[in-house]
Amino acid sequence: MQNYNIREAEFNDSSPILKLIKELAEYENEPNAVNLLVEDIQKDGFGVKPKFKCFVAEIDNCIIGMALYYPRYSTWDGQTLHLEDLIVSRNHRGKGVGKRLYIAFINEALKAGFKRVEWNVLDWNEVAIKFYESTGAEILKDWRTVQMPIKGMIKFIRSNNKN
Amino acid sequence: MQNYNIREAEFNDSSPILKLIKELAEYENEPNAVNLLVEDIQKDGFGVKPKFKCFVAEIDNCIIGMALYYPRYSTWDGQTLHLEDLIVSRNHRGKGVGKRLYIAFINEALKAGFKRVEWNVLDWNEVAIKFYESTGAEILKDWRTVQMPIKGMIKFIRSNNKN
Repeated sequence: MQNYNIREAEFNDSSPILKLIKELAEYENEPNAVNLLVEDIQKDGFGVKPKFKCFVAEIDNCIIGMALYYPRYSTWDGQTLHLEDLIVSRNHRGKGVGKRLYIAFINEALKAGFKRVEWNVLDWNEVAIKFYESTGAEILKDWRTVQMPIKGMIKFIRSNNKN
Repeated sequence: MQNYNIREAEFNDSSPILKLIKELAEYENEPNAVNLLVEDIQKDGFGVKPKFKCFVAEIDNCIIGMALYYPRYSTWDGQTLHLEDLIVSRNHRGKGVGKRLYIAFINEALKAGFKRVEWNVLDWNEVAIKFYESTGAEILKDWRTVQMPIKGMIKFIRSNNKN
């Protein structure tokens, strides 16, 4: 097995990061869902006020995986750290790369004083769920995610201005 | 019906904000889950680097409801705004206070250029789910929330350092 290295992502990783995001979207049956451009990753991740941080896994100058995360706030526990994406490119799965990225993320949260880590998983992704449970994480059965995209937001606000 | 006012929360609202958070925790059958102190709300909401923002609903100098939110990051759409808590005190429900707070939150997200708003709901909270759906929001059926509290984080990292 080749040696790989886990390190913090840098500006120049923006393009491979976007590639991994698109690979995950395909895996989640949403191949056209990624609206971000490489310039967005550059600005949002490595600009003046970064919106997220990221670890990458690298072999021979090639990015094969990443863990992208940002802080959230719980009104029960205070600041928590949210793992938005944990991705390993398909040709490099089964080598423990994902686990090393996951450990790097949880270590980072501990070092920085966060009281909880959290993320989301698709309910049909049994491999991921088994892995998370094996690490002691808890799948919350009774919480649902609710979303309203910008089109819905505009429509809702317009209909309320009429009333 | 008494007139109420929606405004941005201030430092001095920290104590009534914490009271509302505790009232919601009781409603969610988790009366002892709130580990935050009023000093945490003061620092995290109104300190040098605020971790959240909040709208409050007020009648006669009395805070009767709140919408607490913060930015998140989607690797599909960029920055989104997350509604952590939407709370109306039980004696003031059914007067449209929650809807006014919800509108204030979505308006704020639109003005600030966020591409999506999102939040979580308990799957047995039918009143809330009906309200959200009536506004055009979508309940995502196939996503689950995963969490690991600090005790689990320490245990997991220790067990991996041994290997």
